[in-house]
Amino acid sequence: MVRWEPGAPERLQKAALELFATRGFEQTTAAEIAEAVGLTERTFFRHFSDKREALFHGQQVLVDSFLDGVTAAPPSAAPLEVVATALRSASAFFPAERRAHSRLRQSVIDRNPALQERERHKLTTLATTVAAALRARGVDELAATLAAESGVTVFGISFIRWLREDEDRSLADITDEVFAALLKLAGEVPPARR
Amino acid sequence: MVRWEPGAPERLQKAALELFATRGFEQTTAAEIAEAVGLTERTFFRHFSDKREALFHGQQVLVDSFLDGVTAAPPSAAPLEVVATALRSASAFFPAERRAHSRLRQSVIDRNPALQERERHKLTTLATTVAAALRARGVDELAATLAAESGVTVFGISFIRWLREDEDRSLADITDEVFAALLKLAGEVPPARR
Repeated sequence: MVRWEPGAPERLQKAALELFATRGFEQTTAAEIAEAVGLTERTFFRHFSDKREALFHGQQVLVDSFLDGVTAAPPSAAPLEVVATALRSASAFFPAERRAHSRLRQSVIDRNPALQERERHKLTTLATTVAAALRARGVDELAATLAAESGVTVFGISFIRWLREDEDRSLADITDEVFAALLKLAGEVPPARR
Repeated sequence: MVRWEPGAPERLQKAALELFATRGFEQTTAAEIAEAVGLTERTFFRHFSDKREALFHGQQVLVDSFLDGVTAAPPSAAPLEVVATALRSASAFFPAERRAHSRLRQSVIDRNPALQERERHKLTTLATTVAAALRARGVDELAATLAAESGVTVFGISFIRWLREDEDRSLADITDEVFAALLKLAGEVPPARR
């Protein structure tokens, strides 16, 4: 799209995060973010519709990593097994090297309601996309929606745990634990309630 | 709080919904909503911080109905059984007479991203509150969060199904079906994955 400016979105994203973390989200303008990496405000708005979006640049890669996992699951896999495969695929998108960046990003989001709303919206979109991919595999609408929403719930809870200062396990390990806890909870409900 | 104006929030809420549905959310002002029921803009803002809030007046009653269900569950109930009790309690908050109102409200929300964000935020707050109530019963943090989030997912999916034009079952019946579908999905995952 903007072939003459390679890496501009990544540089703008990095500068945005640093400025949001040090000065605050409200106190930072798109022009200042652009200026910090030697670009113009106009270039900023060629890549992002507003300053909030600069923090959500990687979203499509995350969605794609979930979808890759859905595709990789064997045809015989039950819906929640497909979701488990998708969760493992998405975990690979957050290696240990990325934890410091993700922690800083989360601390900015935690301080700003508009960013929290955008983050929730991101997870809603992710669930909708995963549900569509499950339906494309022949899973009925209710099962697809429930499995996708449950997967995004597991991902959201795991991701927040991964960011904790006292946590050093990989996101994949944490996700496995949270997924297993969900199955355990379901298994505790007596058959009469099913 | 405003004892000399009984029923004002309900009247403002009803007028807001009607105006949002006919004129559109963006095209309606708080002053117009107030005027429609013979009140002043100042009175409107005594009850609601902005016009968006007029659509979310019943939120605390919904949260309380979930919490009543958590309290009503026997001490021995597993976390997801407690959530099932809470879902049944919340369903009673939406009798058949309320379906037309809820459908109109949802059609307004579906057309406006700011209202969708507020609705998502409402469900996030509900999950946080239910999780805290589960922790107060001695459920560990992970199980409490997962069970509460799963309950809110079941509620959200059931509620949207209840609003469908081709649906005439009660919200309680739909919720039971969706909850059972979640347990079935979990039961389909082979033991090796747990």
